[in-house]
Amino acid sequence: MTNSEGLHRVVIVGGGFGGLNAVQHLKRAPVRITLIDKRNFHLFQPLLYQVATGGLSPANIASPLRSILRSQKNVEVVLGEMTDLDVEHRRIILKDGSIDYDTLVLAVGAENFYFGHNEWAAFAPGLKSIEDATWIRRKILLAFESAERETNPQSIQAWLTFVIVGGGATGVELAGALAEIANITLKDNFRHIDPSEAHIILLEGGERLLPAFPPSLSQKAKESLNRLRVEVLTQALAQDITTESVTVRLQGETRRIATRTVLWAAGVRPSPLANILSKKTGVPLDRAGRILIQRDLTVPGHPEIFAIGDLVNLAAEDGKPLPGVAPVAIQQGSYVAQVIQSRLRRKNSSPFYYRDKGNLATIGRAAAVAVIKNLRFSGYLAWLTWLFVHLMYIVEFENRLLVFLQWAWNYFTLNRSARLITGVDDSEVEPPRGL
Amino acid sequence: MTNSEGLHRVVIVGGGFGGLNAVQHLKRAPVRITLIDKRNFHLFQPLLYQVATGGLSPANIASPLRSILRSQKNVEVVLGEMTDLDVEHRRIILKDGSIDYDTLVLAVGAENFYFGHNEWAAFAPGLKSIEDATWIRRKILLAFESAERETNPQSIQAWLTFVIVGGGATGVELAGALAEIANITLKDNFRHIDPSEAHIILLEGGERLLPAFPPSLSQKAKESLNRLRVEVLTQALAQDITTESVTVRLQGETRRIATRTVLWAAGVRPSPLANILSKKTGVPLDRAGRILIQRDLTVPGHPEIFAIGDLVNLAAEDGKPLPGVAPVAIQQGSYVAQVIQSRLRRKNSSPFYYRDKGNLATIGRAAAVAVIKNLRFSGYLAWLTWLFVHLMYIVEFENRLLVFLQWAWNYFTLNRSARLITGVDDSEVEPPRGL
Repeated sequence: MTNSEGLHRVVIVGGGFGGLNAVQHLKRAPVRITLIDKRNFHLFQPLLYQVATGGLSPANIASPLRSILRSQKNVEVVLGEMTDLDVEHRRIILKDGSIDYDTLVLAVGAENFYFGHNEWAAFAPGLKSIEDATWIRRKILLAFESAERETNPQSIQAWLTFVIVGGGATGVELAGALAEIANITLKDNFRHIDPSEAHIILLEGGERLLPAFPPSLSQKAKESLNRLRVEVLTQALAQDITTESVTVRLQGETRRIATRTVLWAAGVRPSPLANILSKKTGVPLDRAGRILIQRDLTVPGHPEIFAIGDLVNLAAEDGKPLPGVAPVAIQQGSYVAQVIQSRLRRKNSSPFYYRDKGNLATIGRAAAVAVIKNLRFSGYLAWLTWLFVHLMYIVEFENRLLVFLQWAWNYFTLNRSARLITGVDDSEVEPPRGL
Repeated sequence: MTNSEGLHRVVIVGGGFGGLNAVQHLKRAPVRITLIDKRNFHLFQPLLYQVATGGLSPANIASPLRSILRSQKNVEVVLGEMTDLDVEHRRIILKDGSIDYDTLVLAVGAENFYFGHNEWAAFAPGLKSIEDATWIRRKILLAFESAERETNPQSIQAWLTFVIVGGGATGVELAGALAEIANITLKDNFRHIDPSEAHIILLEGGERLLPAFPPSLSQKAKESLNRLRVEVLTQALAQDITTESVTVRLQGETRRIATRTVLWAAGVRPSPLANILSKKTGVPLDRAGRILIQRDLTVPGHPEIFAIGDLVNLAAEDGKPLPGVAPVAIQQGSYVAQVIQSRLRRKNSSPFYYRDKGNLATIGRAAAVAVIKNLRFSGYLAWLTWLFVHLMYIVEFENRLLVFLQWAWNYFTLNRSARLITGVDDSEVEPPRGL
C-alpha cells in the first residue's frame, strides 16, 4: 500500500462494533484509514444466538464491510489477519504482507475460552462466529433427529437433554430460544418423540443468573426460564465434558448428566494479539488476559496505539472493569476517532468514560429483563424494548427490515424457517468442528 | 418402524420436487408414507444460483421437510441415506437400518458429473447443493478480494477471470448474475481494482446456448449476456481444468485461459442408486445412466417400484427424453400419487404424459427468455414472468415473502446482502471442499 497522499495513516484492526465505529467517526477526518479484518463482514453478535436457534439467517446479521463503507472514500478495507506487531517501525504484520501506520487501533475482540480445557471445544461449541452458530444449529437439530431414529430409551433421553454452560446473557438467551424450539417450533414435527419433553439445563457457576443485572432481575430471568421448563442450576461448575455427558460440581456434590448436546456460553478471552501487544510494548494484562489501557484508551508509552472493546480492561467509575458488551466497544470506537481528530488539530481530549445506557437480555418469546438508567423492568415491555433497541442498532436498513419481518413472522406463526442442517458432507451425520 | 396400522406402506426416497409432490398428493390416501431424505429440507433448486451469487440466503430457498409436512399425519419423515435395495423382501437399506415398503418411489435426483474428470470437482464446483452454492459464493468473493491484494498484473487478471463451463439454464443464469455482481453490486467496493473489469467467459460445447430453447431465444440470450460483457464461446469444450487455468478446445484450435475461478454447469448424472436399482431389477439404463422406465413410471416387472425425476429417462411425445427440470418431476410425483390411489381402489390409470407449460431462463437483471405454449418472448416481460412463476412455486409462504422482498430490494438498490465469505476456518483463506 503506497502512501502517495502523505496523509496521517490510521490502521484499524477488527471490523466489529469498536473498529467499525472508529472508522465511521473518522469519515470527515483528513486521514487515510485501513480497516483490516479476517472476515469480509461486520457481525451483529448480539443476535448470533438467533442464528444458532434457526430464527434468523447468517446474512441477516452480517453485513459486508466493503458494502457498509463503500461511500467512505478515506478508508480501504483489507481482508487479512494480523499476526504480529513491529512497534519500532510502526508496522503491523499480516499473514501475507505488512502495513505501516501512524496511529494503530486494535479492536480484535475476544474468542471462546474453555478455562484450560481446550479439548471441550471439539464438542461444546461456543457462540462467537457465524460458523459457531450454524454448528450449534446443526447440533440442536441433529439431536432431535437422532432421538426420533433412536429406540433405546436412555439414548433418546440423552439426545433430548441439552446442557448450556454459562448463565450470562448469551446462556440465558440460548436457553430461552432452545426451549421455544422444543416447546413450540418443533411441535408436530416428529412421530416418535415429543420435542417438548426435551430437558434443557442451564449451568451457572456463580450465585445467580445474569450477574451483570440486579438480583431482582436475575430472579425474574430464572422464573421466566422455569416457566419455559428450563432447569436452572446455580453454583454449578462443569468439571468434565465428553460427547456423552457433563459432570457438574453442584454445591458440594458431583452430578453426571447424560447428554449429547453441550453448548458453551461460559467464557471468552481476548484475542491472542493482546499477548503480542503486551510482549512488544510491556503493557500489563489483567488475570483474564485483557490489556490494562490508560483512560485515553492508549497503551502506556505508546500514544499512537489504541486498544478497545473486549480486548481491554478499563475500570468504570465504580472501579469494576467495563463489561464486554457492544455499547462499550461502540463508545470506545467513536472516542478514539474523536481523540485522533483532536490530535490532528493539536487539541487535547478528555479521558474516556462509559455512558451506561442500560442492559438488556431476552428470555425466549415475549419475555426479557431490562435495566435502563434507574429503571428496572421485565416481561413484555422489556421484550419490546429489547426488540426495538436491537433493530435500531442493526447496521444495514435491508437487514433491519428482513429481521423485523422474520421476527414478526416467527412471533405470529410460532415458526422458525432457518432450521437447516447444512455444512454436512452428505455422507456423514455428525460433522467435524468448523464445517 | 412398526406397521401396527397395517396400512399400505409407501416409502418415498428423496424430498425434492418429485418426492415431495408425491407425498403431498397422497395426503388423503389410506396409506402410511415414509419420506426419506439425507437432508432435513426441501431445496428450491431453480434459485440455487442466487444463493451462489449472494442474492439470497440458503434458508430462503430451503424449507424443513418436517415443517412442510407437519400437518400431514400419514407421513413420517426420516433423515437417512439409502444405500441399497432388497427387491425380494421389498426393503430399502439405509446407512443405519432398513425400512420395508409395499410401494417404493425413488426420487433421489442427480448429482454433478465431470465427464470422467472427477479431479476437477476439487476446484470447479457444480451447483447442486446449498454447500455447493456457498462454496461458489465464497470462491467468487475471495477472487475479488485476492485481486485487490495482488500486485502482479497477470495474477490480478487471473483472479478477475471467471470461467463458467456449460451454457444451459444454470450456466446462463450464473453468468448473468456474476456479471451483475462485477458491474453493479461491487461498484466502489474496492480501492485498487475495478470489479467491472472482470472477464466472465461462458463455455458451451454445443452450437448454441440454451439448447432446450428455440434458436431465436438462444440468440437473444447471447445478446443479453454480451450486453453484460460476458464472453460467450460456443463449440468450446473444456479439455483440462486446473487451479490456474482452463484449456479449451475451440472450433479446432486450443486456447488456454488463465483463471482462478471455474464454475461447473456442464453436466449432471443420476444418483448412484440408479445403478443399484438396475443391478437389482435388471431395468436398463440409458447412456447417461438414467433409468429407462415404463410409461406408468414403474420399473419393468416391478409395478411396486416407481422412479421419477432426474433419475429417469422417459420419452416425450416427440421421442426426445424429457428434460431434467422441476416441472417434469412435479408432474411425475403427483402422477405416481394418483396411480397408487387408483390401485388401492382397484382402478386402472392412464399412462404418464408431460404437459409442457413452458421454459424460462433469466439473464441477470430484468432480462430473460421464455417459451410458453407457442409464445416465445424475451426481455423485461419474460423476466417478470420468470419472477412470478418462481415466486409462486416456492413452497413456504414466508420464504415467498422474504424472497420477494429481497428481490425488490436488490432490484431497486442494486445491492446483494448475502455476500458472506463463511465456512472458512478463520486461519485459512482458501477453504477445502465441502466447508
